[in-house]
Amino acid sequence: MGERGLEVRNKQVILKNYITGYPKESDFYIKTDATITLKLPQDSYGVLVKNLYLSCDPYMRHLMQEIKGPSVFSSYSACSVYSSVSGTLAYQVPRQSLAKPITGHGVAEVLDSGHPEFKKGDLVWGITGFEEYSIITTPESLFKIEHTDVPLSYYTGILGMPGFAAYAGFFEVCAPKKGERVFISAASGAVGQLVGQFAKWMGCYVVGSVGSKEKVDMLKNKFGFDDAFNYKEEPDLDVALKRYFPEGIDINFENVGGKMLDAVILNMRNHGRIALCGLISQYNLDKPQGVNNFMVAIYKRLRIQGFLIFDYYPGYSKYLDVVLSYIRDGKIVYVEDIAEGIESIPKALVGLFEGRNVGKQVVVVARE
Amino acid sequence: MGERGLEVRNKQVILKNYITGYPKESDFYIKTDATITLKLPQDSYGVLVKNLYLSCDPYMRHLMQEIKGPSVFSSYSACSVYSSVSGTLAYQVPRQSLAKPITGHGVAEVLDSGHPEFKKGDLVWGITGFEEYSIITTPESLFKIEHTDVPLSYYTGILGMPGFAAYAGFFEVCAPKKGERVFISAASGAVGQLVGQFAKWMGCYVVGSVGSKEKVDMLKNKFGFDDAFNYKEEPDLDVALKRYFPEGIDINFENVGGKMLDAVILNMRNHGRIALCGLISQYNLDKPQGVNNFMVAIYKRLRIQGFLIFDYYPGYSKYLDVVLSYIRDGKIVYVEDIAEGIESIPKALVGLFEGRNVGKQVVVVARE
Repeated sequence: MGERGLEVRNKQVILKNYITGYPKESDFYIKTDATITLKLPQDSYGVLVKNLYLSCDPYMRHLMQEIKGPSVFSSYSACSVYSSVSGTLAYQVPRQSLAKPITGHGVAEVLDSGHPEFKKGDLVWGITGFEEYSIITTPESLFKIEHTDVPLSYYTGILGMPGFAAYAGFFEVCAPKKGERVFISAASGAVGQLVGQFAKWMGCYVVGSVGSKEKVDMLKNKFGFDDAFNYKEEPDLDVALKRYFPEGIDINFENVGGKMLDAVILNMRNHGRIALCGLISQYNLDKPQGVNNFMVAIYKRLRIQGFLIFDYYPGYSKYLDVVLSYIRDGKIVYVEDIAEGIESIPKALVGLFEGRNVGKQVVVVARE
Repeated sequence: MGERGLEVRNKQVILKNYITGYPKESDFYIKTDATITLKLPQDSYGVLVKNLYLSCDPYMRHLMQEIKGPSVFSSYSACSVYSSVSGTLAYQVPRQSLAKPITGHGVAEVLDSGHPEFKKGDLVWGITGFEEYSIITTPESLFKIEHTDVPLSYYTGILGMPGFAAYAGFFEVCAPKKGERVFISAASGAVGQLVGQFAKWMGCYVVGSVGSKEKVDMLKNKFGFDDAFNYKEEPDLDVALKRYFPEGIDINFENVGGKMLDAVILNMRNHGRIALCGLISQYNLDKPQGVNNFMVAIYKRLRIQGFLIFDYYPGYSKYLDVVLSYIRDGKIVYVEDIAEGIESIPKALVGLFEGRNVGKQVVVVARE
């Protein structure tokens, strides 16, 4: 209460222009002259938070392009999010605007709350602004952090949206069976590294594709993949997949799309399952690369299933219990790529599409 | 027994050359000088049949192209078929050869049998030769016809493979709910006309696309579709679909593929299901048309599922009971396009890809 009305600087990451093609650092700027009052207005129903860790995720790219008229992406910006608190539909993931700081997932500390479920000092994760402080007007969408014996940044990854996407996508969408052959693209990223470990728990044979020798080594030696390859060194992805899967692929956890997906479909086994988690190869293209080998989906009776993690959030707390115990027992490995300071966000975002990050890309805004 | 050794003429449809592009009548010829002895060899385990009705189906096109090395189609030719008699894997759908008559589905009468489950006079449906008489060496793959109060030709369609594909594809793969919005491409064909009627039983809103005004009228006035359009008159399939599905499509039963599928994906509702039954628009292309709108499958959480009817054959007899009672009660409409004589097969096969047939394409070889 003593700090009522205290006005502080609030550095923000602003989108300078809508993005076409690959994002560039110059598409963003850091606004340094914004300020915020560290007290909510009297009748606010929202929460005021101090952002601690901000999460750079490939999906954000979509929300940064201009949409003219009806768009194939319109349903994405309008996708509903379950509230962790009320179990009801809470809000919609917003498109990025040029006027306000960009939004994305983060870990934050509540400084002031007009919402009965949140109080000063609570730690939360969910959608927030890419700035030092944010007022979140739909706090129903936030998850309260109850366990702080693990790094808080983990709630942007293994304990947050990407981790749960890996879990629900693999166990719910892929319906794995012991001994099945699993292929994961973009396998060292926030989601892929976990899918690979979940698949090993299930007794599957697991191979991942990545974009560097360093990442190949990481998959094999750190995450326990059975094998891995660098797609940049493979002139023919079909040949590469046949080398690692001479008997074909039962499960594909797909993060890349385009030519990779086309080659994967050719190498699927009968009744194989493809979980479409992301298509990072396509996000920066004006015209997407077509998937040509669709006939194979009939002959092989493939199930190709897109999913958004929001649909699965009612099961999140169960996931959290499972994965926390694995973390505490040292039974799961998780690699983050942590950048320092809000100024590093443009570079970190751009780096996602160049494969520059090694592990989950996080930015520390403040440590507490 | 008296006719032991009787040798008769056996007209056959032979593939003259492997097909590239659209099939032409000149890709086939009728061999008129073949003969067959109407008695099986002493130790045969097969059955000798007289073919009555032969079925012209789009899937046959694939098996008529030359495969050099590993092919995306190899798993199709190798797909396993359940035996109606033993419930076990019986045989594989063969690729077409240039030496022997082409093979496909048909209705036939058993003239001689070395198999304990079949006897002279039995009527059967299943894979047979496109000729007057055939020796079937894997009779486990045949279904015995028990109900003859309906036209025998129906066992090439509504009571056979296409009918059961419509039923299992719609009810099992699409998992329909009352009131859902269903779009069927190639909707007047053997499969599509039935899917539409099944969907109406479920209380769905049903629209089909076809290739002529006559077929549009048939869908609306004969099969009870809520609406229908002629895709040849639509310069923009996306616009056409938005006209009939302003709120989007829940279920797509896809028989066409290519540009149609791409437009459909754009118009699917969240959690929509696409059953891939066939991609007739692609069968004659050297390079398939890519499906570009894959991102939408993620945002809308689409399930795209290929299926082959063989996997569902264990449930066939239940289907037969259901649909026979509907036929007897006049509660289902079924349209066949019947050509006369084995000589008409090349034209009938070619016509499938020009949309010339109105309803299920059958050829009568002999009426009994």
